[in-house]
Amino acid sequence: MNIVYKSEPERGRKWAALVTERAPGSSFRQWPDIGDPTTVDYLVAWQPPSDIMQQFPNLKVLFSVGAGADQFDYARLPADLPVVRMVEPGLTNGMVEYVTFAVLGLHRDMPRYLQQQREQQWQPHPMRAAAKRRIGVMGLGSLGEAVLKPLLALGFDCGGWSRTRREIDGVQCWAGKDQLGDFLARTDILICLLPLTDSTKGLLNSDCFNQLPHGAALVQAGRGAQLNHNDLLSALDSQQLSAAVIDVTDPEPLPAGHPFWRHPAIWLTPHIASQTMPETAVDALLANIRRFESGEPMIGLIDRQRGY
Amino acid sequence: MNIVYKSEPERGRKWAALVTERAPGSSFRQWPDIGDPTTVDYLVAWQPPSDIMQQFPNLKVLFSVGAGADQFDYARLPADLPVVRMVEPGLTNGMVEYVTFAVLGLHRDMPRYLQQQREQQWQPHPMRAAAKRRIGVMGLGSLGEAVLKPLLALGFDCGGWSRTRREIDGVQCWAGKDQLGDFLARTDILICLLPLTDSTKGLLNSDCFNQLPHGAALVQAGRGAQLNHNDLLSALDSQQLSAAVIDVTDPEPLPAGHPFWRHPAIWLTPHIASQTMPETAVDALLANIRRFESGEPMIGLIDRQRGY
Repeated sequence: MNIVYKSEPERGRKWAALVTERAPGSSFRQWPDIGDPTTVDYLVAWQPPSDIMQQFPNLKVLFSVGAGADQFDYARLPADLPVVRMVEPGLTNGMVEYVTFAVLGLHRDMPRYLQQQREQQWQPHPMRAAAKRRIGVMGLGSLGEAVLKPLLALGFDCGGWSRTRREIDGVQCWAGKDQLGDFLARTDILICLLPLTDSTKGLLNSDCFNQLPHGAALVQAGRGAQLNHNDLLSALDSQQLSAAVIDVTDPEPLPAGHPFWRHPAIWLTPHIASQTMPETAVDALLANIRRFESGEPMIGLIDRQRGY
Repeated sequence: MNIVYKSEPERGRKWAALVTERAPGSSFRQWPDIGDPTTVDYLVAWQPPSDIMQQFPNLKVLFSVGAGADQFDYARLPADLPVVRMVEPGLTNGMVEYVTFAVLGLHRDMPRYLQQQREQQWQPHPMRAAAKRRIGVMGLGSLGEAVLKPLLALGFDCGGWSRTRREIDGVQCWAGKDQLGDFLARTDILICLLPLTDSTKGLLNSDCFNQLPHGAALVQAGRGAQLNHNDLLSALDSQQLSAAVIDVTDPEPLPAGHPFWRHPAIWLTPHIASQTMPETAVDALLANIRRFESGEPMIGLIDRQRGY
């Protein structure tokens, strides 16, 4: 099998070493050194070349290096080309770590304490028991379900919302547009892990924030285009929201001078919540290629109708 | 039974309401409104009056409102007065939350990312799998054991060190001065939860930091006098340590102008890692009083020889 990789080169070198070790007969090349393009079976990319099928006329599958595949321009991809997003334990663990960190930080008033540190103020504030803090996860796929585990174990009151109804032990679940208001009304810390689709674009806006309890907080680890930046700033100014931990923005990188950089109630990270880890990602890729070649369904195959 | 409370008055009002509800026949008064001092059986305090036995000639037990009882001047306490520190689930949960937050923050380079935010830099850094991050907990009492649980569940490589040997499933344990060096040499994130005793005073010093791997990090949630401030600053300057999360200092509050306030690699919180929660603390107090009155051993009784 012939694989071409087109993404961050340093990580690409790790992928190359691991593929060579774990699938000895295969060829793994890094863009733009692609060899004979007509022999390329699989492309692993964050952004494929715009003329993908002219470049690789015999391409069998396009694999995203990330957890999402919303960055692809589907109008330029043949309708019958399978597109697969990355589902691998390293990516999941990263998101679990990030969200657990963010929720505990917001639960324990850490943005306020770190602001006090800069102001040289030693001032404790009362704390609330985890059982009295209502966490709400939007998006209950493999990542959403995984982040709920440690939050349940820490004793938080956990809820979740998804497009179609899910059942998760110990978690009260809501589904669909009709139940979004009920879910928001009981959520003190809102965590967005939704995929980017036409119906999630701009979803984190004033209308959403105003349905949360006064003083609620936000963890945005979905996709940048879901969040209305001005609406978030207004909600923080009016104290409808108390704080936000933001990992994704639109655009990325966030431009210099943008008000998120200096806002004391915003913790901003540069899209690092979850990173594909070469060790485990290569195993997931090779397992999916084996599935494809033996006619089994691949894990993470995009349903273009649904959008993820 | 007659109880006097001498600590933070707002929390005291919550204790009073709960004691009245849960032990109807009892009397609960807040310092300095103590009623007839000769009838006081139990004192709950952070700092007792210096002439405690003159004030309360029939005192039966001194209860600390906090997890430690090192703040008491034992030379001024009668040798036969039982002294009990607070062991209650609210206090434990708070410490578990704080340490999990701090470890995840250090593991995921968050002090560096928040510093980058202030500098308006969007720059991701490679991440390390939790299984390759070695956590080391100093102090394996009820708090130490409790904080290890979520860290194990998150996949960290966990170790522990204590005065006397402990066995904890999934945790490599070291004990005593002789094994401190071996423990430190394998610890990437060092968590101090030790009680303050003659042998732990000043323990977190250059000698300790130099035995850690280069670039290790510190979580200090023990007692202020265990940490040598200048040694920490030197270790951060030389990059022997990469970052520190500090909840306790000596003195507290930390004076204005102290270099910890403005250090980009230090996160400083005002002794809030763990706070006694009235709901659960009152239950623990009343259960200990019942044990004392029926001649059973109290939970958290201080062994003055050992110092905790």
